[in-house]
Amino acid sequence: MLAAIRRLLIGEPIPTKRAKHHRLPKILALPVFASDALSSTAYATEEILLALAVAGYFHYSVPIGVCIAVLLAIVSFSYRQTIMAYPGGGGAFIVVRENLGLYPGLIAASALLIDYVLTVAVSITAGIAALTSALPALQEHRVALCLLSIAVVTLANLRGAKESGTVFAVPTYLFIVSFFIMIVTGIFKMLFNADGIPDPAPVPVAAPPIALFILLRAFAAGCTALTGIEAIADGVPAFQPPETKNASITLVWMAGILIALFLGITLLAHAFGAVPDKHTHETVASQLAAAIFGRCWFYYVIQAATALILILAANTAYQDFPRLSSILARDGFAPRQLANLGDRLVFANGIVLLGLVAAALIVLFHGSTHALIPLYAVGVFMSFTLSQAGMVRRFIQCKEGAWRRNAAISGIGSATTGIVCCVITSVKFTDGAWMVIAAIPVFVVHLLAISRHYRVCQQELSLEGYRPQRRVHHKVIVLVPGVHRGIIQALLYTKSIAEDPEAVYVELDPANTPRILEAWGEWGQGLPLRVLKSPWRSLMEPLLGYIEMLDNQPDVDLVTVVIPEFVTNRWWHRLLHNSSGLLLKFALLWRRNVVVTNVRYYLDR
Amino acid sequence: MLAAIRRLLIGEPIPTKRAKHHRLPKILALPVFASDALSSTAYATEEILLALAVAGYFHYSVPIGVCIAVLLAIVSFSYRQTIMAYPGGGGAFIVVRENLGLYPGLIAASALLIDYVLTVAVSITAGIAALTSALPALQEHRVALCLLSIAVVTLANLRGAKESGTVFAVPTYLFIVSFFIMIVTGIFKMLFNADGIPDPAPVPVAAPPIALFILLRAFAAGCTALTGIEAIADGVPAFQPPETKNASITLVWMAGILIALFLGITLLAHAFGAVPDKHTHETVASQLAAAIFGRCWFYYVIQAATALILILAANTAYQDFPRLSSILARDGFAPRQLANLGDRLVFANGIVLLGLVAAALIVLFHGSTHALIPLYAVGVFMSFTLSQAGMVRRFIQCKEGAWRRNAAISGIGSATTGIVCCVITSVKFTDGAWMVIAAIPVFVVHLLAISRHYRVCQQELSLEGYRPQRRVHHKVIVLVPGVHRGIIQALLYTKSIAEDPEAVYVELDPANTPRILEAWGEWGQGLPLRVLKSPWRSLMEPLLGYIEMLDNQPDVDLVTVVIPEFVTNRWWHRLLHNSSGLLLKFALLWRRNVVVTNVRYYLDR
Repeated sequence: MLAAIRRLLIGEPIPTKRAKHHRLPKILALPVFASDALSSTAYATEEILLALAVAGYFHYSVPIGVCIAVLLAIVSFSYRQTIMAYPGGGGAFIVVRENLGLYPGLIAASALLIDYVLTVAVSITAGIAALTSALPALQEHRVALCLLSIAVVTLANLRGAKESGTVFAVPTYLFIVSFFIMIVTGIFKMLFNADGIPDPAPVPVAAPPIALFILLRAFAAGCTALTGIEAIADGVPAFQPPETKNASITLVWMAGILIALFLGITLLAHAFGAVPDKHTHETVASQLAAAIFGRCWFYYVIQAATALILILAANTAYQDFPRLSSILARDGFAPRQLANLGDRLVFANGIVLLGLVAAALIVLFHGSTHALIPLYAVGVFMSFTLSQAGMVRRFIQCKEGAWRRNAAISGIGSATTGIVCCVITSVKFTDGAWMVIAAIPVFVVHLLAISRHYRVCQQELSLEGYRPQRRVHHKVIVLVPGVHRGIIQALLYTKSIAEDPEAVYVELDPANTPRILEAWGEWGQGLPLRVLKSPWRSLMEPLLGYIEMLDNQPDVDLVTVVIPEFVTNRWWHRLLHNSSGLLLKFALLWRRNVVVTNVRYYLDR
Repeated sequence: MLAAIRRLLIGEPIPTKRAKHHRLPKILALPVFASDALSSTAYATEEILLALAVAGYFHYSVPIGVCIAVLLAIVSFSYRQTIMAYPGGGGAFIVVRENLGLYPGLIAASALLIDYVLTVAVSITAGIAALTSALPALQEHRVALCLLSIAVVTLANLRGAKESGTVFAVPTYLFIVSFFIMIVTGIFKMLFNADGIPDPAPVPVAAPPIALFILLRAFAAGCTALTGIEAIADGVPAFQPPETKNASITLVWMAGILIALFLGITLLAHAFGAVPDKHTHETVASQLAAAIFGRCWFYYVIQAATALILILAANTAYQDFPRLSSILARDGFAPRQLANLGDRLVFANGIVLLGLVAAALIVLFHGSTHALIPLYAVGVFMSFTLSQAGMVRRFIQCKEGAWRRNAAISGIGSATTGIVCCVITSVKFTDGAWMVIAAIPVFVVHLLAISRHYRVCQQELSLEGYRPQRRVHHKVIVLVPGVHRGIIQALLYTKSIAEDPEAVYVELDPANTPRILEAWGEWGQGLPLRVLKSPWRSLMEPLLGYIEMLDNQPDVDLVTVVIPEFVTNRWWHRLLHNSSGLLLKFALLWRRNVVVTNVRYYLDR
């Protein structure tokens, strides 16, 4: 029955030979790779405003937005270099490990794994926030809605949802187009029809150090707009040839759209005085759409497009996390189950793991995007920094082409993102960034410990120079709990696998022994029966002692213990029988040179 | 290490030959058997007053107390007959089953099992209430204190605390003597020094039907004073000879002391105007002691004696519950693990079960004696009624001696307790008595189902007319996950147990197969290797299919599957390896004719 449910949810198995790779034209590659980056415009402006709200510094939002746009341009320009250098896909782990060595590579891998989990958690909570802004009655069920969304995305990925361009195209283009319409309409309204737009609030003044801290926090919060920008560089092989050129063009498109959307929303939010509302929890994007169009059908289109693209962004992490963890597993840094290709040709264990961890985070942070954001950007910028630093090293070592110029571009990118990473970490430290900073070394230590374990295993299992014995000499005993029909097959089985087997009976109550001995004559199948005394009425101790004695005999390599076992018809019937067999198996688990064999007897009724 | 902790808590095992039976003189038998009954005087009066408090009918407490004293005398008189008739111990289950048949016996057994659990829960909560009355700061920790007490009593019983007369004598006699001093002093104060004793409250008047209901509820609540009165009749063989005479005398003593204590406390509570206090939760007995002596050292002696005798009363149930459940288990009505005599010569499983269920009840009822009381008396009176009805039947059938008079006495006892049982059930139904009424048929149905299961097992396991095969023909296969040191011993083992064994390799990734085949030539120990294709990358399906195919061959009775298994050095290392062996064992659990053998390989580092 379990198998049937599984088949219904996950689908029929797919044979290995059907594994293949799609090649995407630019028009479809954009939605596939850009959904993560573009979707962050749905919440980045809001996070800036929230950080500024402490002091009412809302008029700084536009300058901060411009700084972030510049940063975005620098990082995009720098990532173009990665596309050129790694036509096979330049994920941060690959680039860093190859150019900076193992330890920085593992740091980048840890940062990425954390980043992917947070991409799921942040995107899903932000998507549900777009939904609950349109339908406020759902606000109180937001955690449940988030978990439901995670379950759906996890199942879809277990079924093997590929990065299918057409599925991504509709919501992504819908999002881009509807947001552009909103921004254009909004700017038009702002310029020519200023009715109903509130006057800018009076400018408050704070002491400079505090003011700087608040501005840096707002900047750090807005840096979430950059998340996902590396996706195209990771996925160059999915483009139609010429791959690097197409990927590079798509990256420029994406950066342009991203900057335009982000700046547009930030500008409008300032103009329309949209600020995060702690009571209604309505998103800034929803406030803007409502202010510009009213709550007409188009408002609902915008909200739906926002929710959909955010869920697609989460889906991106469902591709990346299992892929990276399978690479780590293949290289022996992660549990090797993560490298198992499931029967739908996906890394099912990684998908389930990601879903579980993201769901736990959402529950822990009560489904609040704001609470998760401080954790988010740290890992992203750490991997940006390391990845671009790796590129610098590569250009310097290869010394090919315009290597000086290239190294300078990547160097500027790396230095900028490195500084931003430090800023984010310091200004958001107590808000949650410390968790990521603490988690990364823990991850690295575990990755290394796992790798060490596998290496040790490999050494221990190596056949090099191994001289096995020619033959094992083993003694077989069969446990006799009583003389009844259930043991007969075990006795016959024991006779069939050994020359001189022996049956063993533990005398818990000496009063029963004569009856057992009498029945043995008729039913013992010719096996000798040894009665072990048990002065303390324990089944285990005499048996374990006897097995140890047998094992210590010089001509015995292995002791086989045959345990006749009932299988009851209903699971709860099992509670009605002593589970001595199970206990014995457990007790023997740690005894070397003992082989446990269960011969089962089935109760039919 | 677990074994060491266990030894520390529970003690060294005790050999079977040290099992013996103490014989108690009357002076020691009284505390052993009377602690349960006497301890109920610590709360019975309070429960009467609590029931009367609804209408302020406190002046009815003394007449109700007298009614209960009369009932107590009738039941004691009736139980003397059981002592005479059952010198071997006349527990309700034995008497009822022998005289009224199996079904009434099982009803009595169910009522008794529930009764024992409630004895523990009620006695422990009342004991802790005595403690928290003296030390009110502990009031808020009462549930934790109750659970701690249960843990201590459970451990003491697992160690094999016998009904040692000396341990019981000190607290019981301390309780009797200190309560008598309190009662005598109190009556003296009441008669000659009425200062500080409040005037009786004005008598409220209620409509007769409601008034009757309240009075019946108060009576029902007070009937808890009778709990434990059957203990002497159950334990006749523990008395010094002449057993029946000594037991009978002790019963009369106990009934006398019980009536005197109960009436004395009820009278004083009325005279001193002590009523249950919902805010301080101070017990009525504590209020009395404080009113009579002030909070001097003797007050604390009384409270300590009360707490101790109540915990001893709980201990009584720890003797009775495991004994009754072991009798039921021996007769096949309860899981047979309950009949296992542990290594300390006690029915350890029954003791643990009782402790767990009582602890759950205490947590569920927030450690409140009042909340538990409505559940308590129902089971007690049901077993009283059935047990005495059994005696009536016995006298009528045997027709020995003054059988008419004896039958009349038991008949009066049975009829009275039967009526009281109905009264208790009806007036306390919604307070919780319904749970017991609902639980008893559920228990009986389960006892019968268990019995049926064991009978069916016995039939299926019977050797009568069984013609076993002469010899089993089995096919042995060994699973090869890869060629490494860990499988070599499994290969040698497989060769040693069969004529024509076969190694099986499931091809998850066809790219690895040539390497495996090449290594096999050198390390395969001469076994043929069969490669199973797995188009869906599943390990299980091709294997299960192949095993089924082998099993269906006409000359194969059994298929032995040898699974080489790693044992890692640390448990968490196990998470780093595919647990295919475990999954396979699970999948094969339901396949008949398959024997699973694990040959383990230990990783040392």
